[in-house]
Amino acid sequence: MKSNQPAGEFGLIAWIRERERDRIRTGHSTGLTRLGIGDDCAILGVPAGTELLVTTDMLMDGRHFDLESQGGEAVGYKALGVNLSDIAAMAGIPRSAVVAVALPKAQALSLAQSIHAGMSRLADRFEVDLIGGDTNAWDGPLVISVTVLGEATPRGAVRRSGACPGDTILVTGSLGGSLIGRHLRPEPRIAEALALHKAAPIHALIDLSDGLSSDLGHILEESGGVGAELDAAAIPIHDDAILMSRRDGISPIDHAMNDGEDFELCVTMATADADRLLAQPPLGMTLYRVGEITSEPGLRLRDFDGRLVPIHPAGFDHFRAGR
Amino acid sequence: MKSNQPAGEFGLIAWIRERERDRIRTGHSTGLTRLGIGDDCAILGVPAGTELLVTTDMLMDGRHFDLESQGGEAVGYKALGVNLSDIAAMAGIPRSAVVAVALPKAQALSLAQSIHAGMSRLADRFEVDLIGGDTNAWDGPLVISVTVLGEATPRGAVRRSGACPGDTILVTGSLGGSLIGRHLRPEPRIAEALALHKAAPIHALIDLSDGLSSDLGHILEESGGVGAELDAAAIPIHDDAILMSRRDGISPIDHAMNDGEDFELCVTMATADADRLLAQPPLGMTLYRVGEITSEPGLRLRDFDGRLVPIHPAGFDHFRAGR
Repeated sequence: MKSNQPAGEFGLIAWIRERERDRIRTGHSTGLTRLGIGDDCAILGVPAGTELLVTTDMLMDGRHFDLESQGGEAVGYKALGVNLSDIAAMAGIPRSAVVAVALPKAQALSLAQSIHAGMSRLADRFEVDLIGGDTNAWDGPLVISVTVLGEATPRGAVRRSGACPGDTILVTGSLGGSLIGRHLRPEPRIAEALALHKAAPIHALIDLSDGLSSDLGHILEESGGVGAELDAAAIPIHDDAILMSRRDGISPIDHAMNDGEDFELCVTMATADADRLLAQPPLGMTLYRVGEITSEPGLRLRDFDGRLVPIHPAGFDHFRAGR
Repeated sequence: MKSNQPAGEFGLIAWIRERERDRIRTGHSTGLTRLGIGDDCAILGVPAGTELLVTTDMLMDGRHFDLESQGGEAVGYKALGVNLSDIAAMAGIPRSAVVAVALPKAQALSLAQSIHAGMSRLADRFEVDLIGGDTNAWDGPLVISVTVLGEATPRGAVRRSGACPGDTILVTGSLGGSLIGRHLRPEPRIAEALALHKAAPIHALIDLSDGLSSDLGHILEESGGVGAELDAAAIPIHDDAILMSRRDGISPIDHAMNDGEDFELCVTMATADADRLLAQPPLGMTLYRVGEITSEPGLRLRDFDGRLVPIHPAGFDHFRAGR
């Protein structure tokens, strides 16, 4: 029998545990969970030869979301979604999640239930088991931290570090202006990453969380100091970037390059492979060619006048920028 | 070359990554890490047949520590320590940790470095690789969330759920009054749990984080509604419990039963095994017989006058208690 009125911390844990029991695919070939919520640790059975992927992301009220206007469900969805996006960024398959929360005391129970509801939407779709967590209440703002475990496919995980001069750079969707609302509803590109990984050797892969300039910068750095040339006319600009540009006077291309939280994939691969996939995208996915990797270090943008201008990554630095 | 003056979030990540590279035991038989800090996910190579353990704990300033008086190193130590204690509570071996932080903006960098120093003391001792994390800064108080991965031994993980009527209940150290300062310096009973698990079949195991009454209550509940009888005269009372009793008038035995954050182990096993281990404790560890499991449900305490009184778990409920 499922109770609808959890009391106290242990009541809440029992409430979540009841709801998660159905989701645990113990015994199924795809599930790893041997023991879920309710002990000191969860237990996973990991098949021989598996490369396990681990990622963690923390979201804070007033920084990554606004609880009062957006509500707990949106927070739960985003908190799991951004972590699933990191699994996609390795071309992996998400399997399990643990969730730690600091809940504002006055509404701890109802808020935890909303967060769980938002998280469940993604957990159901992507077959992720919620295997454990830590529930706290305090006088401070809502903080939520999610760790997701996933598996690499037999083709291996795709790192940031394999970009080669001459590679074509692709992105899976239009960019910029996500703060208008899209940043709350990340669409983890799990299926897209797996399909690309199957269709061609991916050299380097990252998800666009900090912004194209900054995240592509990570690829360049990790790939041993190669460079990149982006083509402003080829970068897909989201309608939200145009909308924001009208409000703040910053150009749409700047929004597309620097806003972040697009949660699209940025991929590099050999040009022949890229041409083939652009002509016939796997799963019918959206795919844009935005530039190429160069042996000359640094990031450059060919602007709308055809001039090549150096770009300094200006994506999101959590220690500096405000929201 | 190790830099000593990290700048911004990415500077901090590079600073931590440099320091963690030495700790990563890639290629060694005991390490799981194939890829540490610096990509979208960490990658672990998990040996065939491994049962993987996963646990997470979040600590908040003003709730689990007081940053101003105790400092960042103590916070880092405790944040990793309480998670290692959960691995001990399954008789497992800790391997990897990911850390997410919300840092007060004014001192984000120096605080992150102190936290890392405190964490490193335990990571070094227990050979835990710090494989990833998420660094954030904000106007709120310090929040830190750690997820630890471990391995069960070939004997399997020990759950809370195996207590049998007639089992002897043991604890590994004296209890109560940890708030005086001990709660900041948890000593993860990893070696003790492994030694006990090797010396005798452990039926049920938990670490004392919420308090003996509450944590033993979890064992009783998970073991299908068995009960327990504790002997007040046998419960080892920490000097800190006596000190706190003088201050607040609450009896030392109540402190020992309910304070929590002792991070000692509570173990149940067959009486013959317990007698043997009490006579000759493995590793020369401290070991106390505190009571026994009963078929009659509920938790009872034989008080100092020999009367048997029912006990209602009064351990730490994060949604209710204050610090």
